[in-house]
Amino acid sequence: MLKLITFLSQGDARVGVVRGGRMWPLDDVLSANASKHDMVAVIRDWDAIRKSLKLESPGLELTDIELQAPIPRPSGAIMCIGKNYRDHVKEMDKWKTAPALSAQDVPKNPIVFTKAPQSVIGPGAAIKYPHGLSSQVDYEAELAVIIGKPGRAIKRENALEHVFGYTILNDVTARDLQKRHQQWFIGKSCDTFCPMGPWIVPATEINGEDLRIQCWINDELRQDGRTSDMIFPIPELIETISAGITLQTGDIIATGTPSGVGSGFDPPKHLLPGDKIRIAIENIGELLNTVE
Amino acid sequence: MLKLITFLSQGDARVGVVRGGRMWPLDDVLSANASKHDMVAVIRDWDAIRKSLKLESPGLELTDIELQAPIPRPSGAIMCIGKNYRDHVKEMDKWKTAPALSAQDVPKNPIVFTKAPQSVIGPGAAIKYPHGLSSQVDYEAELAVIIGKPGRAIKRENALEHVFGYTILNDVTARDLQKRHQQWFIGKSCDTFCPMGPWIVPATEINGEDLRIQCWINDELRQDGRTSDMIFPIPELIETISAGITLQTGDIIATGTPSGVGSGFDPPKHLLPGDKIRIAIENIGELLNTVE
Repeated sequence: MLKLITFLSQGDARVGVVRGGRMWPLDDVLSANASKHDMVAVIRDWDAIRKSLKLESPGLELTDIELQAPIPRPSGAIMCIGKNYRDHVKEMDKWKTAPALSAQDVPKNPIVFTKAPQSVIGPGAAIKYPHGLSSQVDYEAELAVIIGKPGRAIKRENALEHVFGYTILNDVTARDLQKRHQQWFIGKSCDTFCPMGPWIVPATEINGEDLRIQCWINDELRQDGRTSDMIFPIPELIETISAGITLQTGDIIATGTPSGVGSGFDPPKHLLPGDKIRIAIENIGELLNTVE
Repeated sequence: MLKLITFLSQGDARVGVVRGGRMWPLDDVLSANASKHDMVAVIRDWDAIRKSLKLESPGLELTDIELQAPIPRPSGAIMCIGKNYRDHVKEMDKWKTAPALSAQDVPKNPIVFTKAPQSVIGPGAAIKYPHGLSSQVDYEAELAVIIGKPGRAIKRENALEHVFGYTILNDVTARDLQKRHQQWFIGKSCDTFCPMGPWIVPATEINGEDLRIQCWINDELRQDGRTSDMIFPIPELIETISAGITLQTGDIIATGTPSGVGSGFDPPKHLLPGDKIRIAIENIGELLNTVE
């Protein structure tokens, strides 16, 4: 299975290809004409790049590489879906972040908000605890869709043609800020609140619509769901968002989180400095971050 | 008074300087070393650029230029403030876009949401009516703040040091979508729903905290307020947003709209194809767009 990474090489971000625990910088395995330093450009040219890939050299050990988020600084919106798993709607009821909702009243239409592009961090990077600003920092393990082919008014039956691939995204959230400001952007966008990675798996390699998604905090399993349990499945999300908004290559849609977030426990199990978060999505991999 | 524009020149976006109805492409009046093709880079280098500006040549007629939005495709978030003028909170009460609010209950903290970067259009460009998707398209005349110096945890007393300048932004909104999806991103982000311009006036030239802001639909004056009437003034908005989010050069904060939006009338006066929208902000200029 092929995966695409962004990694640091002498201070610069570079794109590489991963297969079987080894990686090849696109620099080394592509002709000079192709885009190879910017993930969004690589996604745009991927069909041609893939055909010309020759992974015959030994490549590098993946463990020798410093990974970044696959798209380290998105230039499009990071769109996120709220309350897209039934059990999560139920566990969040008492928090009243969306007053119109209750467990009996799952959203009739997708709830879409965004995270600030500057909140993105990569695998292994620290989530900085916002001391003095929030005392209810929560994790949300999510499957993120990376848009390939641009489009508007995409019908659900064609929607998956517009998905380039998938990655893991932790929609870190300050519950107190989320509630205090009514619209969720501020509570979702603190610096370092968008861990993403470790790579993009092209949609040709896996079926994003039915993957197990799990999240451990300090080795305690907290979330364990399947993407097939989404209230609004990926094709419907793409249809809804693209009805009025032209989706662009590199746009990111985080598809919502299953139950088991810290706020769902009684008493709540919010994150604290030192906590280790491990998110695994079947056939994609693991995203690890520590709260600092 | 100096103003900064982005304009089209043989298909490429270029930055220019405007003074007294004439304009000079930065290409023509700056040495080769300075950034001059990208507004955000120009903002970053503005102190040096301003010192080396020599507007001695006759320049060009502003009317001969095809203006773009000053930042045609923002790579940062377009942050917008909801319900930031008391009379607007009151007129929107019946629409229940934010169930917790009523006229007696103005927001206790700023409401912050975003518009998609691909929704930006320039002065004179058409707002495309989203037929079949919305029948409640509304205008919102707003003063937009353009961030210059980056910063986090900015105190209100220092906040204006981080403002590079001001422009006009029309926070076009599909009220039905805004309500249907609970979080406002979708209703605020249809293609062409973010007219911006005609230029950036540096904060050194005007006082953004007390400017008259007016909006006419087909020559009928609908909105007429002052930026001094904001519930959360500009320094407080910057303090609140930057508490957790590092503001970046080129980030945009649309500061909310005064009363007089279409939804505030009984019956509502929503926009229809053919409507002409003219927004004027004192000491900045006028932004004109037509619904198509």
